Amino acid sequence: MNESGKLIVVSGPSGAGKSTVISRVMENDKSVVFSVSATTRAPRAGEHEGVDYFFIDKKHFESMIDNGELLEHTQYVDNYYGTPKLPVLENLSKGFSVLFDIEVQGAMQIKKQYPEAILIFVIPSDFSEIEKRLRKRGTDSEEKIQQRIKTAKIEYLMALNYDYIVINDDPDLAAFEIKAIITAEKCKTVNRKKYLTEVSLS
Amino acid sequence: MNESGKLIVVSGPSGAGKSTVISRVMENDKSVVFSVSATTRAPRAGEHEGVDYFFIDKKHFESMIDNGELLEHTQYVDNYYGTPKLPVLENLSKGFSVLFDIEVQGAMQIKKQYPEAILIFVIPSDFSEIEKRLRKRGTDSEEKIQQRIKTAKIEYLMALNYDYIVINDDPDLAAFEIKAIITAEKCKTVNRKKYLTEVSLS
Repeated sequence: MNESGKLIVVSGPSGAGKSTVISRVMENDKSVVFSVSATTRAPRAGEHEGVDYFFIDKKHFESMIDNGELLEHTQYVDNYYGTPKLPVLENLSKGFSVLFDIEVQGAMQIKKQYPEAILIFVIPSDFSEIEKRLRKRGTDSEEKIQQRIKTAKIEYLMALNYDYIVINDDPDLAAFEIKAIITAEKCKTVNRKKYLTEVSLS
Repeated sequence: MNESGKLIVVSGPSGAGKSTVISRVMENDKSVVFSVSATTRAPRAGEHEGVDYFFIDKKHFESMIDNGELLEHTQYVDNYYGTPKLPVLENLSKGFSVLFDIEVQGAMQIKKQYPEAILIFVIPSDFSEIEKRLRKRGTDSEEKIQQRIKTAKIEYLMALNYDYIVINDDPDLAAFEIKAIITAEKCKTVNRKKYLTEVSLS
């Protein structure tokens, strides 16, 4: 009997080292597919269509909103970002789990439609590490850094809406925790009832 | 910051291969301690006090019941079986998780007192495997085998009261699933709130 795929939503404040952790999760697990977002912003150097994003124009994006073709979407500065529903449903139907790297609002939109989605929030064990990592980039002004720290704090408060909190002091350990969560979720009784149905007290 | 220990209750019908799986879980994980039950039955050849059981007399066992010194207890044929509370609480306070190998009734008693206890039911993916394993022992009469199969079926129906169902077709894979469950439970937001409290929006 096949196990069915899961929706795995991973969020975390800027500086939590989320993308490294996600790539470690994906590296060795062929049962998990990464969800590629759609955006109306222009591709940056090195970004590839269908890998980093689906790059589409504003009119197309708005028609996808109107037709309910997005699992979630948000607007940031002048651009739209969102998750096309079709590839997600296709992968689920093939038994794959789908992993989303999206921010808090998008995560809540997915949970609302799919209460069985697994919401994981990634943070370092010590908040001061966030500040350290944001400063390390060395490209932002102090004002911008302070703004990012404040945003990170607000995002921290949203973590209470997540099912799991994964600690990223070491990306390998954090990836290990996420993989354990995916395995454990598949073992939940509600997901394995089928193994009980064959037994009847005749 | 230390993670706190968990109560992990493992049950399963006779023939599910539970004890092998449990020993695989314990082998490499020093953070999990096995809960030794108390019993009033006489030790069998090769059984050791404090390893297989705490062997105590009926009067002592009944005084433990009266004094609330047992987490759970049950009577089987003419003997009592139960879990002394003190070693469990001591191990938890040291940050260890405690794993219990107990039957369904005892599991329900523990869940009632400790709703945060993790209940895991171990079964093979195919019920006919249970029958095969019960017959393999070759020591029981057909009548006794039929009785054991019926008991196993009744136990299967109790699995719906468990949090997780672990499939034991391969003891290593089953042990892997139980370890993943323990890791995932530690990551639950309710168990990691402490990492969020340090952040304030001042």
